[in-house]
Amino acid sequence: MSLVIVGSIGLDTISTPSGSVVDAIGGSAVYASISASYFTQVNLIGVVGKDYPASAIDVLSRHRINLDGLEIAEGKTFRWSGAYHDLNKAETLRTELNVFADFVPKLPASCSSCHTLLLANIHPSLQLQVLEETPDYNHVACDTMNFWISGCPDELALVISKVHIVFMNEDEVKSFTGKPDIFSAANSILEMGPKLVLVKRGEYGSVAVQMNSLFFAPAYPIIQVKDPTGAGDTFAGAFMACLEGHVELSPDVIKNALRYATVMAGQNVSEFSIKGILDLERNTIDEYKEELCRMTV
Amino acid sequence: MSLVIVGSIGLDTISTPSGSVVDAIGGSAVYASISASYFTQVNLIGVVGKDYPASAIDVLSRHRINLDGLEIAEGKTFRWSGAYHDLNKAETLRTELNVFADFVPKLPASCSSCHTLLLANIHPSLQLQVLEETPDYNHVACDTMNFWISGCPDELALVISKVHIVFMNEDEVKSFTGKPDIFSAANSILEMGPKLVLVKRGEYGSVAVQMNSLFFAPAYPIIQVKDPTGAGDTFAGAFMACLEGHVELSPDVIKNALRYATVMAGQNVSEFSIKGILDLERNTIDEYKEELCRMTV
Repeated sequence: MSLVIVGSIGLDTISTPSGSVVDAIGGSAVYASISASYFTQVNLIGVVGKDYPASAIDVLSRHRINLDGLEIAEGKTFRWSGAYHDLNKAETLRTELNVFADFVPKLPASCSSCHTLLLANIHPSLQLQVLEETPDYNHVACDTMNFWISGCPDELALVISKVHIVFMNEDEVKSFTGKPDIFSAANSILEMGPKLVLVKRGEYGSVAVQMNSLFFAPAYPIIQVKDPTGAGDTFAGAFMACLEGHVELSPDVIKNALRYATVMAGQNVSEFSIKGILDLERNTIDEYKEELCRMTV
Repeated sequence: MSLVIVGSIGLDTISTPSGSVVDAIGGSAVYASISASYFTQVNLIGVVGKDYPASAIDVLSRHRINLDGLEIAEGKTFRWSGAYHDLNKAETLRTELNVFADFVPKLPASCSSCHTLLLANIHPSLQLQVLEETPDYNHVACDTMNFWISGCPDELALVISKVHIVFMNEDEVKSFTGKPDIFSAANSILEMGPKLVLVKRGEYGSVAVQMNSLFFAPAYPIIQVKDPTGAGDTFAGAFMACLEGHVELSPDVIKNALRYATVMAGQNVSEFSIKGILDLERNTIDEYKEELCRMTV
């Protein structure tokens, strides 16, 4: 059993009301992979430049993430710079694609026996390339962002029509479908093919929507949110990892995955960059999950 | 066992994106009393004018609400007129106090054996008058609104210092305490004396905050919210009714009350005025509650 995660790997410069970091470890695939690593074997697919710090590779290796699919290309690593004036919305200040501009994702041989795939937030055309070379996986999911919804909605729609699970936040799901509420919006996405839509609502938690059922999770309560970067990636990584070994998306499987995804996203926002999700004990994660269960009605 | 509810009784003229009503049955005590009537015996304390429609009295009687404390005064009934451009925030267009201007709430003899009191949303000075004549009840709660928080914060603080339970929405709890998040804000209120704060978050549900515990409930999912008026009153009425017979605010008691409060608030917003909470079967309410349990993680 193992999970394939394809997405961005980068260095983030972030400013929030709690402080700032420069060239910190980031990228959708990195957040998702570290988060997933507590629950299953993870194979990370992505590209970095020659300047990618050895310390970052060490972090990924330390979390037993398989790096056969990590390409180290000539040039500079992808960089993103953003600021949060309020914690609910990132303002992108600068994006440098660098080695990402010519990236062609390739699944290494070691991924041929996998059953679960997360297409973390990257250009839908790259997500499509991966889908074309993916064998018949049990669970294939995509994440995305407002930039692709407005920039290439048709390619994104094609991706969505080919996956089982879609991760979007509530603004994204409404703007992509043109529906005024998350329930109608999620149903529009289910009509395109997927079996499950995860609607992320920031400090208010998340909703899992299937054709005939709904599951609500609160956000894990964090008094001081320091840096929301990567919360959605962390959520998606843990959620997908918890599907491993389950062919059916039953209520119990979804609820269990939602709980762990909620706990990991909470850990993530409690610190800058990936610091909140590093080197956790699985026991501690399980205790947070039990606490979450006690806190929900 | 019975619950005393003191608050406004009025006629509401409401406009929302789904339509409008004129001089519809409303008022914080009316919403709360009808909602509570499914769970316990309710005693309503308030005032109306000679113009209060007999049909409204019939509705209250039909829900077995004791009207010994209903004063019928010379003059016109309290009227409120509001509009919702988005469904999260009412804009008050007009308030006519009418008979409410000279109202002095009095608890009738039939309330002397009660154990639970809800001071629904009215002027804090009226809430204080009731508190002064209230015997040693098990559970005393107050609701309020932004108008009193900005208009008479000192009187409101005095009310809060004398009750066990406080109902506020997330904007109110932050503006009253000056704290940036609902958890710190609720803790500030707990430090003033209450044992429990219910923070209402509209479409995102609610959080019950005690000194060392939190309980989260999602909102009951309603595809088309027609009229949010009275949702908070409906929530508070059902919550307080469900405390009847329980001296301790244990996790099970709070969770059960939160579930029923959530179901009743959902029913309320699905129709204009009080229409959504009229003439329900207790069986149906219990089925919605079971459904809510299945939907939370």
